Amino acid sequence: MTMQDDGPKQRKVGIVNMNDIREVSGLEYLRGIAEGRFPVPAMGRTLKFHLSEVGEGLAVFTGIPDADCLNPMGTVHGGYAATLLDSALACAVQTLCPPGYASTSIELKVNFVRPIKVDTGRLICRGNVVHPGRQIATSEAKLTNEAGKLFAHGTQTCSVFRIPD
Amino acid sequence: MTMQDDGPKQRKVGIVNMNDIREVSGLEYLRGIAEGRFPVPAMGRTLKFHLSEVGEGLAVFTGIPDADCLNPMGTVHGGYAATLLDSALACAVQTLCPPGYASTSIELKVNFVRPIKVDTGRLICRGNVVHPGRQIATSEAKLTNEAGKLFAHGTQTCSVFRIPD
Amino acid sequence: MTMQDDGPKQRKVGIVNMNDIREVSGLEYLRGIAEGRFPVPAMGRTLKFHLSEVGEGLAVFTGIPDADCLNPMGTVHGGYAATLLDSALACAVQTLCPPGYASTSIELKVNFVRPIKVDTGRLICRGNVVHPGRQIATSEAKLTNEAGKLFAHGTQTCSVFRIPD
Amino acid sequence: MTMQDDGPKQRKVGIVNMNDIREVSGLEYLRGIAEGRFPVPAMGRTLKFHLSEVGEGLAVFTGIPDADCLNPMGTVHGGYAATLLDSALACAVQTLCPPGYASTSIELKVNFVRPIKVDTGRLICRGNVVHPGRQIATSEAKLTNEAGKLFAHGTQTCSVFRIPD
Repeated sequence: MTMQDDGPKQRKVGIVNMNDIREVSGLEYLRGIAEGRFPVPAMGRTLKFHLSEVGEGLAVFTGIPDADCLNPMGTVHGGYAATLLDSALACAVQTLCPPGYASTSIELKVNFVRPIKVDTGRLICRGNVVHPGRQIATSEAKLTNEAGKLFAHGTQTCSVFRIPD
Repeated sequence: MTMQDDGPKQRKVGIVNMNDIREVSGLEYLRGIAEGRFPVPAMGRTLKFHLSEVGEGLAVFTGIPDADCLNPMGTVHGGYAATLLDSALACAVQTLCPPGYASTSIELKVNFVRPIKVDTGRLICRGNVVHPGRQIATSEAKLTNEAGKLFAHGTQTCSVFRIPD
Repeated sequence: MTMQDDGPKQRKVGIVNMNDIREVSGLEYLRGIAEGRFPVPAMGRTLKFHLSEVGEGLAVFTGIPDADCLNPMGTVHGGYAATLLDSALACAVQTLCPPGYASTSIELKVNFVRPIKVDTGRLICRGNVVHPGRQIATSEAKLTNEAGKLFAHGTQTCSVFRIPD
Repeated sequence: MTMQDDGPKQRKVGIVNMNDIREVSGLEYLRGIAEGRFPVPAMGRTLKFHLSEVGEGLAVFTGIPDADCLNPMGTVHGGYAATLLDSALACAVQTLCPPGYASTSIELKVNFVRPIKVDTGRLICRGNVVHPGRQIATSEAKLTNEAGKLFAHGTQTCSVFRIPD
């Protein structure tokens, strides 16, 4: 039901052609990114995280924050956790979009429960749909290390809409 | 009461020495970053935004999102707005910390009200303290373009703590 | 532009007839409640608060919490502040609905900044629209006493929809 | 590990004596309310909900919203769901407080996913701790009917503190 990959490596970075999205479901579209048939987004390259697993109502992102993500105090900027959570929360909803539909984030709520450091290592951000509404959907996500230690968690509200012609 | 700068240019990127923070107020510390006496944080260089104005209970960040911040759909990733909001919200609280104290983000709430695009141009994120509590403080921020058009807004809860010896 | 009243007194409690709502704007509808032409909602009677002022993009509720609102620790239950904030936030958006449209709360974010006590006295909850979107709108509100001391604040996301036939 | 009751019935309504709280853990204190050894809070009587189950990191509230909780549109006021969620979220954290400690809500985030109506029937609000921090803790809760249909969900941040002498 789900698939995994080994990271984005030498993937082409770019934007998905709107006609490609219109013809496939959200799940197929995200599988296309995870499996390398669609280009990976630039933000993932900039902050070094990628979509590592996708399923119905599920999206998992993986990343290893490094010195390029530090805030002035020497810990990883809260924006890093917020970006991974936003990605997992939005894509979890997108996996439920039928062909011709897409979703967009309306709002994001993040709790930072532990500082992320440069030596924290690989982080996994697992997003799940909570309410699969046809117009308004909600999701929740947790950001942990590989041992399951929690660093941040969040929820999101998304708007699901018909892709305009 | 406030000061401005022209951007981070060739500023040294890095972490602030803890002893420097301990001796100055949060406002002096952030002025030191904005004025170039303290190194600018790596995350600001990575996502190309900087602290442009700081005052009592106020922090303003400025940035011009570019193609490195795009999500798969071709708009700027929600994590970009979340990062600027988190910066402005946290630093607004930090301006009120007396010497020997610092603050840390506990939670962040973001509303995305319009898509940010690669040609949106310069964005300004203005954060203000709402509740200047001694242990728990809150702030609110708005992310607009130079004409005042709103793209996102948010609130934050911060914990204020004594910097450990 | 705005109007005030002296409280709900002996107002009729009930539900607004849908046909009445369909023919008037959200602002006229809320003015009708505040001025006593429409029945006041039961929740306002139960928790003893009422709509005291309404204008374009603005809704103000007033209440005096009493011993019926206490939590086990002897302070006013967080649900009281949440209820007033939800009312002011939702009605602020509703003032912008044209005839035939209504709005509904999608999500609510509340910060509790000070305990409310049985002797805190009259509280004023002032809600303002932040983003007057045609489909998704946002608002912010502050709950203070008459001297302006802040007890809680919040934001909300609302969905604006056409009232079904 | 957990216990259930049949509702508050003729329970004494009131405030818990602070000396009673100081000597017992949060879990014992909440069990005392659920089992009727401590008075039930007034807000529960006013909005007709009660603590029905409590365990380590878990608190469940039950209520049947009636016509006293309606908003002007004839559905149950969002404040009702917010109040049950706030109760379950705060008490879940309180179950982890050792003797001499208590917790207080700093912030509450609620998603309203379906309207609650006067004939919705019995609602169950189940709160669980997410991050059991010693100073700042977080929790999540879901509000469903007995069939498990989701009406609202939320998260909360609590501050854990030593009860002052």
